[in-house]
Amino acid sequence: MDQSADGKREMAAAPALAWLAGAGAAARAATRLLAATPLEARNAALRAAALALRAAEAEILAANEADLAASGSQGAFRDRLALDPTRLAAMAAGLEEIAAQPDPLGRVLAEWRRPNGLHFRRIATPIGVIGMIYESRPNVGADAAGLCLKSGNAVILRGGSESLRSARAIQAAITQGLREASLPEAAVQIAPEADRAYVGAMLEGGGVIDLIIPRGGRSLVERVQREARVPVLAHAEGLCHTYVHASADPAMARRIVANAKMRRPGVCGATETLLIDAAIAPALLPLIIADLAALGCAFRAEPRARAILPDLPAAAPADFDTEWLAPVLSVKVVDGVAEALAHIARHGSAHTEAIIAEDRAAAEAFLAGIDSAVGLWNASTQFCDGGEFGFGAEIGIATGQIHARGPVGLEQLTSFRYIVEGSGQIRP
Amino acid sequence: MDQSADGKREMAAAPALAWLAGAGAAARAATRLLAATPLEARNAALRAAALALRAAEAEILAANEADLAASGSQGAFRDRLALDPTRLAAMAAGLEEIAAQPDPLGRVLAEWRRPNGLHFRRIATPIGVIGMIYESRPNVGADAAGLCLKSGNAVILRGGSESLRSARAIQAAITQGLREASLPEAAVQIAPEADRAYVGAMLEGGGVIDLIIPRGGRSLVERVQREARVPVLAHAEGLCHTYVHASADPAMARRIVANAKMRRPGVCGATETLLIDAAIAPALLPLIIADLAALGCAFRAEPRARAILPDLPAAAPADFDTEWLAPVLSVKVVDGVAEALAHIARHGSAHTEAIIAEDRAAAEAFLAGIDSAVGLWNASTQFCDGGEFGFGAEIGIATGQIHARGPVGLEQLTSFRYIVEGSGQIRP
Repeated sequence: MDQSADGKREMAAAPALAWLAGAGAAARAATRLLAATPLEARNAALRAAALALRAAEAEILAANEADLAASGSQGAFRDRLALDPTRLAAMAAGLEEIAAQPDPLGRVLAEWRRPNGLHFRRIATPIGVIGMIYESRPNVGADAAGLCLKSGNAVILRGGSESLRSARAIQAAITQGLREASLPEAAVQIAPEADRAYVGAMLEGGGVIDLIIPRGGRSLVERVQREARVPVLAHAEGLCHTYVHASADPAMARRIVANAKMRRPGVCGATETLLIDAAIAPALLPLIIADLAALGCAFRAEPRARAILPDLPAAAPADFDTEWLAPVLSVKVVDGVAEALAHIARHGSAHTEAIIAEDRAAAEAFLAGIDSAVGLWNASTQFCDGGEFGFGAEIGIATGQIHARGPVGLEQLTSFRYIVEGSGQIRP
Repeated sequence: MDQSADGKREMAAAPALAWLAGAGAAARAATRLLAATPLEARNAALRAAALALRAAEAEILAANEADLAASGSQGAFRDRLALDPTRLAAMAAGLEEIAAQPDPLGRVLAEWRRPNGLHFRRIATPIGVIGMIYESRPNVGADAAGLCLKSGNAVILRGGSESLRSARAIQAAITQGLREASLPEAAVQIAPEADRAYVGAMLEGGGVIDLIIPRGGRSLVERVQREARVPVLAHAEGLCHTYVHASADPAMARRIVANAKMRRPGVCGATETLLIDAAIAPALLPLIIADLAALGCAFRAEPRARAILPDLPAAAPADFDTEWLAPVLSVKVVDGVAEALAHIARHGSAHTEAIIAEDRAAAEAFLAGIDSAVGLWNASTQFCDGGEFGFGAEIGIATGQIHARGPVGLEQLTSFRYIVEGSGQIRP
């Protein structure tokens, strides 16, 4: 068998494409079956999978140990990849929590009758076959499998190649759950090899994937958005603002800003930029900065803020376009709602913004003027989270404009279709 | 100025990209303003644009005459491109009908309170900046502009290059309407030149287009789906089935099948394949076929249908995968709901299917078993239309699985965001 350079490329991709064709056909059949499956069967599979995860603790941790040893990874990467009994228990509990959620399928989203007698219903249905591409974080695969199963979607999981042994061990438990509930095992599949050609095949879609959900760092998400030939529901950037209005309750503002920035500085809903009205800044900004500094936060301040607090480091122009994901805060003094809105329109990422204000008119003007997925009044931007929204669990947060924005939970993993009942109507 | 071959390519694309950057920024500002504009202002712009269209009849028809002369086109292409006073009046009336529709913006789609006191509302918002890519059909541009304006979206229109003069003349009238209502003219823009580089720039998106809607033939839609780097809401294929169950009322079945196939054979909701139960076929199929033949329909029949009607032409295997869009019907005899569903799962395009049945259990099994955007019971598949759904007007029909399925009207042109009201909550 002689191979040209081109031939080699083909040979590398062909197994992945062939695999996807087979996996996709099985997944399509599985989602059709799941869509017609009563809630109780889907929940039974979730609960059985949770039990199987717990029962397989030793195997899963051993597989994870092998992944860790092979990857030789350190630091944050190792922390994401590593499993322990606590994390495994949380994974199992997560599946049980998903089982306890109401059924996202079959909801009648709208219903009406036309003058010709036709009766319309819009009904929630699964999206279909979802491709989940994520980094070496085994729990992401388990959560995604649970959410997709509950919402009637089949999922093809492709985690980071360093986590393949862990992913296989977890999938075995989920497969057991599906089997015990007599549901198709093809509802949850994983790419069988670490070869990156499988990512390429999934992004191509091959006519079998309805939606790709990437989850991970920015380079992963951007690659998926750039290369995918199928729709993508993704989280791009969370450059969130907290705006302290002149009417803010000072104590509330201090408490909320400290939480919005420092509770977990690395999450997408963390505040990256503080905007504060000039009328209140001389009195309040020093207190807010002192609170944050005591928590270990650093600052990048523009001139009007430095006029109040000369010791603050000066901000470079790019700082207000930077998603820090770290204990760093950009600080700017503004003259009211209009300037705050203009700054957010120019520098924000339409993710999450908060206003701290006692003045209802100011808050309403702010909330109406932003274009962000989530706008909060007198609450921390860190509430941008599926659990905090009451969605139970989330598969991620969407920053695009279509299908879903903000936390993506079970409801957001559904699509819809129309059922139209007539009595012999023909169209004139 | 010496230009390499590569240089030339760059030079060709650069003006289009530069134009899009400017148009996109203006469009972004316009959608933000529209989102905050009361319904009455948007409606006033629509009504003023309708009046301006009527007032500019002579100019628009002259521009269209010039387009027709320059294109030298004939037949169906010419028919799509050509305007006359009747079509122009329909275009203006269309804008007034859109003005009469309820406001799609600001609807509270969901509302709830969490145990911590946070109050959540999910509110309908514009999608943002929509790119509309369509063939040389001037009325598509006017409809799209009206629907986008009403739903608060800015739209960048790119019709077929042969219709550029007509598109400009129509846009001038819409611009006048925007001006009279003091709304930003950048809400409705058109690509300024016939150069296809503008299509390329729009598909690239340049970070300014939130959604591309292609409307036209399959090659146009497929190009857009293949090349777009931004989300696409598109109509791919309408391979629709009508299934006549054994319990069907024969007279109703004859009436509906004739309408579903022959009312307008070229629309996407036209039935392409007739499935009929073996129990009723010997008595009913000859009558259905005779009705259709009298209307000028041709047939492609599989062996069991030909066993009943030997004169029917034999179907080739590919015929059941063919969207005829013409007076041709594929015909197959099946043994009940399960076989009908299996055929549709294999050959359908998840667009629109109908069952004709008196047996409610059979109808429900059929409607639950299909995965199509629209399922009808005892009604014609040709009802798959925004107007027939009561949506007023539609910008197209979507065949994907996310954001919207079926007719895309004003509601489907919206997205949503969350407004969260608190009283100082921080996240634990």
